[in-house]
Amino acid sequence: MSSLVIERTLIKDLSPLPDGTVTVAGWVDTVRDQKKVQFVVLRDESGAVQLVRPRTAADVLAANGEVDEIADAISGLSQGSFVTVTGELKHDERVKLGGIEVRIETLVVDGAADPETPIAADSGIDKRMDWRFLDLRVPRNALIFRVQTTFEHAMRSYWVERDYIEVHTPKIMASASESNAELFKVDYFEGSAYLAQSPQFFKQMAQAAGFGKIFEIAPVFRADPSFTSRHATEYTSVDAEISYVDSHEDVMAMQEELLVAAFTAVVEKHGAEIKELFDVDVTVPTTPFPRIPLAEAKRIVAERGYVVPRADADMDPEGERQIAAYVAEEFGHEFVFLTDYDASIRPFYHMRHDDDPQLTKSYDLIYNGTEITTGAQREHRVDVLEAQIREKGMKPEELGGYLDFFRYGAPSHGGFGMGLARVLMLMLHQPNLREVTYLFRGPTRLTP
Amino acid sequence: MSSLVIERTLIKDLSPLPDGTVTVAGWVDTVRDQKKVQFVVLRDESGAVQLVRPRTAADVLAANGEVDEIADAISGLSQGSFVTVTGELKHDERVKLGGIEVRIETLVVDGAADPETPIAADSGIDKRMDWRFLDLRVPRNALIFRVQTTFEHAMRSYWVERDYIEVHTPKIMASASESNAELFKVDYFEGSAYLAQSPQFFKQMAQAAGFGKIFEIAPVFRADPSFTSRHATEYTSVDAEISYVDSHEDVMAMQEELLVAAFTAVVEKHGAEIKELFDVDVTVPTTPFPRIPLAEAKRIVAERGYVVPRADADMDPEGERQIAAYVAEEFGHEFVFLTDYDASIRPFYHMRHDDDPQLTKSYDLIYNGTEITTGAQREHRVDVLEAQIREKGMKPEELGGYLDFFRYGAPSHGGFGMGLARVLMLMLHQPNLREVTYLFRGPTRLTP
Repeated sequence: MSSLVIERTLIKDLSPLPDGTVTVAGWVDTVRDQKKVQFVVLRDESGAVQLVRPRTAADVLAANGEVDEIADAISGLSQGSFVTVTGELKHDERVKLGGIEVRIETLVVDGAADPETPIAADSGIDKRMDWRFLDLRVPRNALIFRVQTTFEHAMRSYWVERDYIEVHTPKIMASASESNAELFKVDYFEGSAYLAQSPQFFKQMAQAAGFGKIFEIAPVFRADPSFTSRHATEYTSVDAEISYVDSHEDVMAMQEELLVAAFTAVVEKHGAEIKELFDVDVTVPTTPFPRIPLAEAKRIVAERGYVVPRADADMDPEGERQIAAYVAEEFGHEFVFLTDYDASIRPFYHMRHDDDPQLTKSYDLIYNGTEITTGAQREHRVDVLEAQIREKGMKPEELGGYLDFFRYGAPSHGGFGMGLARVLMLMLHQPNLREVTYLFRGPTRLTP
Repeated sequence: MSSLVIERTLIKDLSPLPDGTVTVAGWVDTVRDQKKVQFVVLRDESGAVQLVRPRTAADVLAANGEVDEIADAISGLSQGSFVTVTGELKHDERVKLGGIEVRIETLVVDGAADPETPIAADSGIDKRMDWRFLDLRVPRNALIFRVQTTFEHAMRSYWVERDYIEVHTPKIMASASESNAELFKVDYFEGSAYLAQSPQFFKQMAQAAGFGKIFEIAPVFRADPSFTSRHATEYTSVDAEISYVDSHEDVMAMQEELLVAAFTAVVEKHGAEIKELFDVDVTVPTTPFPRIPLAEAKRIVAERGYVVPRADADMDPEGERQIAAYVAEEFGHEFVFLTDYDASIRPFYHMRHDDDPQLTKSYDLIYNGTEITTGAQREHRVDVLEAQIREKGMKPEELGGYLDFFRYGAPSHGGFGMGLARVLMLMLHQPNLREVTYLFRGPTRLTP
């Protein structure tokens, strides 16, 4: 397939090979340095294999005036060191680790590790985050990012096959995108700028530009000081926006198709390994996902004995868990769209129902009890937008550049934003975003 | 394929359909409002089509006491308004625009445009950037982002098929990644942070984590006050990093395969349209790309009569154009790898040749006369890294977190970073990055 000069064989590809010479490379998991034979368990990104080296007896070496350099190198190997080994692949059913082993002929230490490893298997999460590059060597942790890769590529393939345009919206902005809250301020030459909280306005701009259907997977930034398991100051947002929609139903129909494509790819490629390492059966959701108007969801939750303790019309995290439990019991489904949120708890740009202007054409998507998405049809009529901006206590003139997008013609449109790490967290039954983020960023976490 | 409720037909898909009822939607390009018949050229993201509507004679209307509402609506259509039209598709060879037309039966104005359009076909680039959402309606400009989408997806597919892991490295950092120059500072709660200039350190961290092969396409930020055609303060960087390399040759071999895959996809999908709208023949490069050590390149350029006017050992933009011209003449190739840069002009983390420590195992990739990539094998031996850091006048203790990545074992590795917009600019023979960036960011450009 390729002329790449990397001649090593991935450990997962060893088993089907016939006995013979192979080169493997990776890091040292364990060394068993016995009197007559030495064993090394070598790990790479694809798996683990046993390396073996019979010692030449000390009296034989002494008689010949020789030193067994490879034996000495193996004895000196610290856990975590990266090595390249060439040797003889042997299939042997007695070897517990995959029924194969490699008899070491040459061994090169590419990068020796300090023998004092700073984290252990039982280190707490903060300590593990400090040494994230070691934490990510754990196969279970590395698998998360393989799953993420597959999940993202399946989404992008879904979109590209349907002629969506990928956009890269700017993350540095002159002013706030939606509100002045939770914005990070940047020194920008002689002035100031802000980091984008979402690509919302720029996604909508693409609709006015006639792009039709667009997507973006990119970082967003929230100066949110909270320390919950579900929040980060920087995270990867999965965004799509499409024109010529009749309502938020069109957006939901697209998102559920998209998720089916992405979950199918994950189950096919990683289902067995996820089961083995996380003890989770990832399932492909059926369509249509259940849809429940928010007001009805609140009634259902109340009937289950939980009254949402909020002054406004919104749901809360426990209410989301309750409605998810109801949906799991009634429909056997892990997803539920809550729809038609009250206008008072939605941003000004959500379109409202013609026949009930108190309700928006919007939704949240709940997965395994936690919100992963907000979506909506957007209001594209400038006069209605201006009225809704005023109703929210904001000034249309402060959103002039945004309103301009719709002054020169705009199609009906809608879209959603989805937190990538939240999906991974809920898919793999992880307790917080830190476990499923390559390098987590929070109010007190900026390193490594 | 899909249950999506968007029933409109894309204009590009009309031609193969039989005569009959269709629904199209898009924006008004032109209106010809004649006495007996009205014509509208409608444009969507896929093309343009003529809509037609015979007028009912005024005397007939008057006799019946009727008003022709559709005729009035057409008369009132401003250029740029978004409309949805249902009508009768007719194939008619006499119609210049694709040999088809749609006879309007119903017309809904989804979003009326202000009649005063703020830009014209001959507006200057700054004015066009001010109204970028209108500028992007020009088919040639929209095509750029379709090409970009195809180019990116082909690269990601190349990587995913080869088991690379996609990473999302943080863009907010506690300290500088490579140097303190050109960093944007962020107010971060009670303290400060910086925006990542590149994912360099975090890409390398993945190698220490045993990820093997990774990629990322994401924004990077440079507080560079320069105003050249080739610089932006925020741009999309295409990054890859691979372990177990023997030298920068392995990185170059991967990058040229990657580019062949991406250019092949672009030529297959958009070659004809690029030719039509840009008058450019995009060609798939042959491999291997020519490779010329920098010192030799400077001799060649000098022989052509150009002496690089720099005090250091580096090339300059004119030198890059000269060597590209030489390569085009000698090898008929648009790409050239310049290799083995002097250590004095490369960052501390570039590995040096064993047999000539003055030279790095590094390269730049020049495409049509302009640099698009810097790549290298990285130094992964902590003691050598520390020496090279000191040689650059920096302090190893200030890079402690980075050096830690290599203290607990690391494989040999290398990678590259490539400016996405630069590739598009050079591929489509555009004069500057602003033309090929969705929303350009520069020292004086933060809007829209």
